[in-house]
Amino acid sequence: MKKKPPAEKEKDIHESTPERLNAFSDGVFAIVITIMVLELKRPSNPTIGSLLQDWPTWISYFASYIFIAVVWINHHFLFKYATVVNLRLVWANFAHLFSVSLIPFDTDWMAETRLEPVPVAMYGFVFMLVNITYRLLMRETISARKQPDQPATRLFRLRSISTILVFGIAMVVALWHPYIGFGIDCACLALYLRPDLRGIRS
Amino acid sequence: MKKKPPAEKEKDIHESTPERLNAFSDGVFAIVITIMVLELKRPSNPTIGSLLQDWPTWISYFASYIFIAVVWINHHFLFKYATVVNLRLVWANFAHLFSVSLIPFDTDWMAETRLEPVPVAMYGFVFMLVNITYRLLMRETISARKQPDQPATRLFRLRSISTILVFGIAMVVALWHPYIGFGIDCACLALYLRPDLRGIRS
Amino acid sequence: MKKKPPAEKEKDIHESTPERLNAFSDGVFAIVITIMVLELKRPSNPTIGSLLQDWPTWISYFASYIFIAVVWINHHFLFKYATVVNLRLVWANFAHLFSVSLIPFDTDWMAETRLEPVPVAMYGFVFMLVNITYRLLMRETISARKQPDQPATRLFRLRSISTILVFGIAMVVALWHPYIGFGIDCACLALYLRPDLRGIRS
Amino acid sequence: MKKKPPAEKEKDIHESTPERLNAFSDGVFAIVITIMVLELKRPSNPTIGSLLQDWPTWISYFASYIFIAVVWINHHFLFKYATVVNLRLVWANFAHLFSVSLIPFDTDWMAETRLEPVPVAMYGFVFMLVNITYRLLMRETISARKQPDQPATRLFRLRSISTILVFGIAMVVALWHPYIGFGIDCACLALYLRPDLRGIRS
Repeated sequence: MKKKPPAEKEKDIHESTPERLNAFSDGVFAIVITIMVLELKRPSNPTIGSLLQDWPTWISYFASYIFIAVVWINHHFLFKYATVVNLRLVWANFAHLFSVSLIPFDTDWMAETRLEPVPVAMYGFVFMLVNITYRLLMRETISARKQPDQPATRLFRLRSISTILVFGIAMVVALWHPYIGFGIDCACLALYLRPDLRGIRS
Repeated sequence: MKKKPPAEKEKDIHESTPERLNAFSDGVFAIVITIMVLELKRPSNPTIGSLLQDWPTWISYFASYIFIAVVWINHHFLFKYATVVNLRLVWANFAHLFSVSLIPFDTDWMAETRLEPVPVAMYGFVFMLVNITYRLLMRETISARKQPDQPATRLFRLRSISTILVFGIAMVVALWHPYIGFGIDCACLALYLRPDLRGIRS
Repeated sequence: MKKKPPAEKEKDIHESTPERLNAFSDGVFAIVITIMVLELKRPSNPTIGSLLQDWPTWISYFASYIFIAVVWINHHFLFKYATVVNLRLVWANFAHLFSVSLIPFDTDWMAETRLEPVPVAMYGFVFMLVNITYRLLMRETISARKQPDQPATRLFRLRSISTILVFGIAMVVALWHPYIGFGIDCACLALYLRPDLRGIRS
Repeated sequence: MKKKPPAEKEKDIHESTPERLNAFSDGVFAIVITIMVLELKRPSNPTIGSLLQDWPTWISYFASYIFIAVVWINHHFLFKYATVVNLRLVWANFAHLFSVSLIPFDTDWMAETRLEPVPVAMYGFVFMLVNITYRLLMRETISARKQPDQPATRLFRLRSISTILVFGIAMVVALWHPYIGFGIDCACLALYLRPDLRGIRS
């Protein structure tokens, strides 16, 4: 390492960060998506009936798996825009990962109580939290860029605000009708399976 | 990052994906292969007899370890062909990892019930699922390539279809004769210890 | 790989190490920050009251999450200085990761006992240990550099010594007043949310 | 990716492997070293006495942590020699990781039974297995190289054979005197804290 003027050195520190931030985030995503399986309740009897009777476990696990996959894809996609990394971006990322880390906890609680109102409402709440922290992350990623990409910014904002609203509604509905609340969560998730990439293409 | 025309930008996004997809997949594989040990039942007494009495635990753990190793090697090998990554490849990969994540669950269930018919049949089912999702992954990987590699494609297809059939038979047999079903799974696995690399060499 | 003279070969080994050491450390950090969620106690009843009653669990989890995030940021920041890696640096890093790995253990113990004196005092002790091992790591990182960066060194030393003292006080206070001890730990942590980067900038 | 002749393509596959093999191995090492903490028994009472009474837990955890650190350092060091990766090296690596994955299982068993003869003897056995698989790995790594490095080879062989012998003795001794057997394991481990790098330097 040759001696560099301070300005270049500082830039060096910023430039090299995204890779390690990405690697660390991927580690957390990989663990969160995998440890849920540790919590999967073994059926009480070795029969197909017993396996099917645990449907709340299976449906919760499956929904959460898709959920985390969608979050990873969006995170991955957003970090294409992250060329300059500062401390606020690092903290926004930690806030995002924190809300993601609540998914296995609530998935298990939901499965254990067989979709009781409060755990399902909390599921909607976790979805909201993930989206709100994603918005924070988005703002830091795009504000940190030298050339803000206007259409992409607007698209991101519109999508995330409407999603947050829908999950908020699902949370409230779940307190009275947990199955309907859970259905709204899943329907909203389905819309995300094919992310709109117009922001990049046009 | 200098300003680029949209086409190049889009390509950039595609080109940079395989590394992160690989890293994420490796994280999941590493966790899945390792968390099984967390589920290993401690022998009830600190004696060699008690350790040996838990043979269903040991044999299930060992078979699943080899199984995941084989899946990792194939995944690794296939991703050599992945030069262009699109969203369908990402989802095919998530489907593949999902089926891999079911291995520790069923391994533990099989060990706990000492190779009862239903858990062993489900083991064959998980093997099938892993192979079916691998076929999806294979199709996306090869269709995403600019120059499809015909001999490799045919070889892959033949191998995977015949394997899926054998695991399907093992699943059905296990419902009546779990030990035989488990034996077929293991025998089929043994054939994979030395993957045929002719597709690349010729 | 072409034949090289011994001196160059040895340099090669040193130069290539930081990446793998970083990747390994990131893996440990990612697991430690994520497995805490596995220990999160499911509320005994599916009610909001039951969820709120577990406040020691939530507050412990949240504090430890922030704690590990701060440690990761500092580790990340310090490893910018690590250009030459020797065995002592590797061992200092293992000592640091060891103390970090005690966090989930004590977080869970603290939550389970609802902030009893001894677990909270041990929390202060783990904070101290993390800081002491960080100092070791810091010394190895900076002594391993060809050009020591004096102002950064002094800044690091001052910060870490005063922090170790504060956590030591928190540990002792916790034995009589666990809430006050825990409060000191959290207050000291809050000061770290915005690391002073003057060492690099000036 | 431009069209290449088969020979070059094959080389490509070999050349790109070490990084992914390293990353995967590091993931497994990071998980193995960290999940042990999940198994750490919470003391039955929130007192220092209760914490100290669990000394077999602490001593087992500490020894295993050092053990895995030593194994990682050796693995890391050996893979500097791995420039060409073939399928046998991949399988030798999986065998090595398998024996490493048995460490958390036995550490917990040893702690739970407070150093009973059979678990401690098995600890010696796991140490042996780790060393035997390391020898396999070593052979593949060095035979895969174009220019075998004779002095390093001999040094490796001598060290590993004598270590395997000592752990074998520790295993047998532990069946009658578990504390002495465990002491031999730890003493032998201590010798490894400073790996002899003469093989590279001279």
